[in-house]
Amino acid sequence: MRYELYYWPSIQGRGEFVRLALEDAGADYVDVARRPRGMAAMLRILESGSVKQPPFAPPFLKAGRQLIAQTANILLYLGPRLGLAPSSAAGRLWVHQLQLTIADWVVEAHDVHHPIGGGLYYEEQKREAKRRARDFRTNRLPKFLDYFGEVIERNRGARTTYADLSLFQMIAGLRYAFPRAMAKLERRRAWVDALHQRIAARPGIRAYLASPRRIPFNEQGIFRHYPELDG
Amino acid sequence: MRYELYYWPSIQGRGEFVRLALEDAGADYVDVARRPRGMAAMLRILESGSVKQPPFAPPFLKAGRQLIAQTANILLYLGPRLGLAPSSAAGRLWVHQLQLTIADWVVEAHDVHHPIGGGLYYEEQKREAKRRARDFRTNRLPKFLDYFGEVIERNRGARTTYADLSLFQMIAGLRYAFPRAMAKLERRRAWVDALHQRIAARPGIRAYLASPRRIPFNEQGIFRHYPELDG
Repeated sequence: MRYELYYWPSIQGRGEFVRLALEDAGADYVDVARRPRGMAAMLRILESGSVKQPPFAPPFLKAGRQLIAQTANILLYLGPRLGLAPSSAAGRLWVHQLQLTIADWVVEAHDVHHPIGGGLYYEEQKREAKRRARDFRTNRLPKFLDYFGEVIERNRGARTTYADLSLFQMIAGLRYAFPRAMAKLERRRAWVDALHQRIAARPGIRAYLASPRRIPFNEQGIFRHYPELDG
Repeated sequence: MRYELYYWPSIQGRGEFVRLALEDAGADYVDVARRPRGMAAMLRILESGSVKQPPFAPPFLKAGRQLIAQTANILLYLGPRLGLAPSSAAGRLWVHQLQLTIADWVVEAHDVHHPIGGGLYYEEQKREAKRRARDFRTNRLPKFLDYFGEVIERNRGARTTYADLSLFQMIAGLRYAFPRAMAKLERRRAWVDALHQRIAARPGIRAYLASPRRIPFNEQGIFRHYPELDG
């Protein structure tokens, strides 16, 4: 089946967690909004008054006649189909649980630069962002890192899943946004670089990262490099 | 099977979305942390160095030997078992998608009073909270309400699922936290009260709401009534 992914064409954003899974598996997919007239097609679905099961926001995936939204939900669907989820129901719930914890982390990583509202510019909430960034770097970032470090430690030898790919993406994004804070935090957390390297070396991911399909990080996405937020 | 729910004993919080599903179905469950020595049992699991699949935070559910965390994930597991999810795989993904959108909404409803950090007191971020509250009331609240209004409109006659129960909880919480803003928004959105009444009248929910098991809303939970944030 050819999957159709719908997501904003100029950022990695939440869509990237889906792209990584599709690319790792070498799946047949179209990144619709990056094609000519693709944005119009995406907006048509978002603004349609008749889609029975409408998405609240991108990303969403068309798989045959199914329309699936919410990043973690898309991965819940794709995981077994792409060989990136355990075969047992209990194992799939566990991996999904990890993905939902990553989703919470994504919101926090985003809200560092938008603590007051997504509809306002960064410049309109810069002072608040500095305060939130301090809390994020000092409390939340180590808490999330140590949680996933523990999970990896306690599940050595487990097969790679879409949650590993998403964790790779978190590390890449956090390193981009907070190079100083991450360098400091990684000093005593060798697993971070080990996981990043292990995923980056997977054939599908390596090819993807080297291709023009990988949109560079930028200051419109989730992970933004504002030096004043990096401590 | 007797389910064991682990959640903070003094707030509705995220645990309430699970409690409502269990209560609606008349399921056999224990709200562990509200029992004597229950908090210690919960903290033992959270702080254990040996649980192979540890939760990041409450709520989590023990179902036989399975330990399941993340509110939406718990409902994904419980839904079919409690008769609160569609029977088709596609239908279950759709209801889960709605639940994940509600989860996003929950974060935003919470962060109104904690825009800078969950580890700081409200009083330490009151000025920022006022700014965020304005954005929430003006932009986000109508956007989420209108999305779910559309979903209900386009799916008339669909069976009640755990997402309906969660939507009921959102309405109840938002009315508690933002009585003025909600009264105004509900004027042209009759479905809000209709859904609230329909769910409140279900036998399991009616009995639950009248029981001491329903913890009153308070200023430690997700939905907090601070008049200065209500416009």
